[in-house]
Amino acid sequence: MPSGGRALSRTAEDARGAGASGVYLDWAATAPPSRETADCLQETSREIFGNPSSIHRWGGQARALLEESRRIVAEELDCDSGLVRFTSGGTEANNMALLSLLRRPKPAHLVMSALEHASVHEPGRILEKFGWRVSRVRRGASGLVGAAEIGKALRPDTALVAVMLVNNETGQIQPLEEISGMLRERERSGGPRIHLHVDAVQGAGKIPFSVRGLGADSLSVSAHKFQGPRGVGILVAGGGLEPLHTGGGQEYGLRPGTENTPGIAAAGRALAAACRNREANLRHAGNLAAALMDGVRSCRQCRILPEDRLRRPGAFSPYIVSLAFPPIPGEVLVRVMDDRGYGISTGSACSSRKTGDTRVLEGSGVSREDAFSSVRVSFGPDTTEKNVLDFVHDLRREVELLFKVAR
Amino acid sequence: MPSGGRALSRTAEDARGAGASGVYLDWAATAPPSRETADCLQETSREIFGNPSSIHRWGGQARALLEESRRIVAEELDCDSGLVRFTSGGTEANNMALLSLLRRPKPAHLVMSALEHASVHEPGRILEKFGWRVSRVRRGASGLVGAAEIGKALRPDTALVAVMLVNNETGQIQPLEEISGMLRERERSGGPRIHLHVDAVQGAGKIPFSVRGLGADSLSVSAHKFQGPRGVGILVAGGGLEPLHTGGGQEYGLRPGTENTPGIAAAGRALAAACRNREANLRHAGNLAAALMDGVRSCRQCRILPEDRLRRPGAFSPYIVSLAFPPIPGEVLVRVMDDRGYGISTGSACSSRKTGDTRVLEGSGVSREDAFSSVRVSFGPDTTEKNVLDFVHDLRREVELLFKVAR
Repeated sequence: MPSGGRALSRTAEDARGAGASGVYLDWAATAPPSRETADCLQETSREIFGNPSSIHRWGGQARALLEESRRIVAEELDCDSGLVRFTSGGTEANNMALLSLLRRPKPAHLVMSALEHASVHEPGRILEKFGWRVSRVRRGASGLVGAAEIGKALRPDTALVAVMLVNNETGQIQPLEEISGMLRERERSGGPRIHLHVDAVQGAGKIPFSVRGLGADSLSVSAHKFQGPRGVGILVAGGGLEPLHTGGGQEYGLRPGTENTPGIAAAGRALAAACRNREANLRHAGNLAAALMDGVRSCRQCRILPEDRLRRPGAFSPYIVSLAFPPIPGEVLVRVMDDRGYGISTGSACSSRKTGDTRVLEGSGVSREDAFSSVRVSFGPDTTEKNVLDFVHDLRREVELLFKVAR
Repeated sequence: MPSGGRALSRTAEDARGAGASGVYLDWAATAPPSRETADCLQETSREIFGNPSSIHRWGGQARALLEESRRIVAEELDCDSGLVRFTSGGTEANNMALLSLLRRPKPAHLVMSALEHASVHEPGRILEKFGWRVSRVRRGASGLVGAAEIGKALRPDTALVAVMLVNNETGQIQPLEEISGMLRERERSGGPRIHLHVDAVQGAGKIPFSVRGLGADSLSVSAHKFQGPRGVGILVAGGGLEPLHTGGGQEYGLRPGTENTPGIAAAGRALAAACRNREANLRHAGNLAAALMDGVRSCRQCRILPEDRLRRPGAFSPYIVSLAFPPIPGEVLVRVMDDRGYGISTGSACSSRKTGDTRVLEGSGVSREDAFSSVRVSFGPDTTEKNVLDFVHDLRREVELLFKVAR
């Protein structure tokens, strides 16, 4: 495994692309695809290459594989298979859900948490340019964005509420069942139907949930986060969404373009594998997170973010831990630890090497100074306890050194 | 090769997905990925899995591969590498170019040929819902949609002209240089700047052209049409486009989402391979098209579509041939030939098994009856002359049989 073991040497061959060596602790940015994923991409490309829209046998085979993958996904996420649409990634899935609002007859109002990923937050800004009003809801006294906080932001013309399941920077889990329960209760009391969109990109295959259980009207998943292929996402969505991108009628008219059959097949298999091992992997990640937090707490100036994480471990995914050693800038720490052979990130590495974007952490109650200093450590099934202990050991040394230099 | 050889037996194993056997003559729908493509997907997934946005070594390697792929594409298409944006496919690339108009301050006017693929035609309809006016230009007396035809449709507020390079149903090539020359000439005479978008999906790697030579402001390519991977497209575009989908800043802010590095690397290599062999492959396709047309012309009721194809062979890509045996429905012929072991399609197999969509063929001057009966035969580098001669032989027999039944 690229992420296992420990080899600090960085040869010219490494740099030329024969695979980086070291300890990869940035699984929330992207997970190393499993061997099954890589092999499935290769084999399906060669063996089932037909266009699923074609009438002939090659098309029929591709169509059968596509529908089999759809059934697998539906089973793992607990939804009707007719609601599963394959997309090019989580970002597209989130954009599709949000921007479908542009097809409505006139602009109205939507609510999102202040902690959303850029692929929800930014489409919100696009919608504002088209006349929509957007309420961005910060956490309440409980530390969460719950039903009470969302409820207060609703207006008579609220069309959509978007709240992410697992935050990509802190691992915080939002109480979606509570939010959907509140929305449905209002509906039963004669209120309007409000669409609930859930970005579950950091949750799928990692923490237990179901589309039905969450009460989501639409939900986004990204395959590369659970060792599936890059370039494949899933939008679970019923009839309430209308696409902006059009032109071929694929995926029930919601997502046009020739289907990426090899990627879709690999994504279905990777999701099934992740869900099969989910409980064991989750316990493992819990041990890793505990070892990391225990190990770093005694480091000078260490902050675990947000500060209520230690008091409410159940409200966070153990796959993601956010740390800070103020005033050491997060980016400096990432580079120093890279030199020591460890891959970690500042905030959300999904975003394009922007540093200093502290929106999400500040929305989570973290001070601007701590947010600027934050680094994210994230695990996967192949991360070992030794990886984490080695990381803590080297981190402690580097932090001491940086403080000495700064003094 | 899945497409080579001839094996009519269709075993249970085939049907279960071990690869269909027979003669695949539907390369315009999708091309069998090359071995290099399949291997590159597998190897890159395992070896260079980092997120290009990550600061650490894994990210750096992925970023280097991404930029190397961008340079390869830019060299093959003859444009600045800073203009190459990777997308999830040709459909997304076309949608991005068209729908970016929605970001303009107010609706205006656009012009497209009446022959455009659904991924240009349909976004045109979306734009109409947002108040844009769309002129759809039919072919002129020359049989082409040329500068004269486009020029007549321009209005003072025309913002964009979209004309495809190679038609996906007939193979007809439009005179893009003439159109861009006319647009630039008007601009030099004080007219407004009009954006020219070219859908080059059926041209890239197949017929010689360059972005600069065509004078395109934006241009779309799809990797799976030239034996590259599924789920990867290219939009060549300068600063004139603003994205609708947002949320991570990737691809110069134009196409958000974690980059599909394995697919992008495979796409770059596949384009380079296709361009390297382009002239030889084009001659080969020319021989195949000639053999097919010579072979079927003596069949009863055979029509080669559109009717000026035989008079103007230079105006058509030899990779695509459209035929009809009215009144035999195209779909019947596709199914019958599938039973005989041949994969061909009705009209555009890119669209989702819709049959009876005769928009493009009718726009090419084909009667509705002929369009309804049309089938598309399309070639690739692995298609042999024997494949085509066998096809002609069996087609002739099946057509005779169908006419007998109908009598």
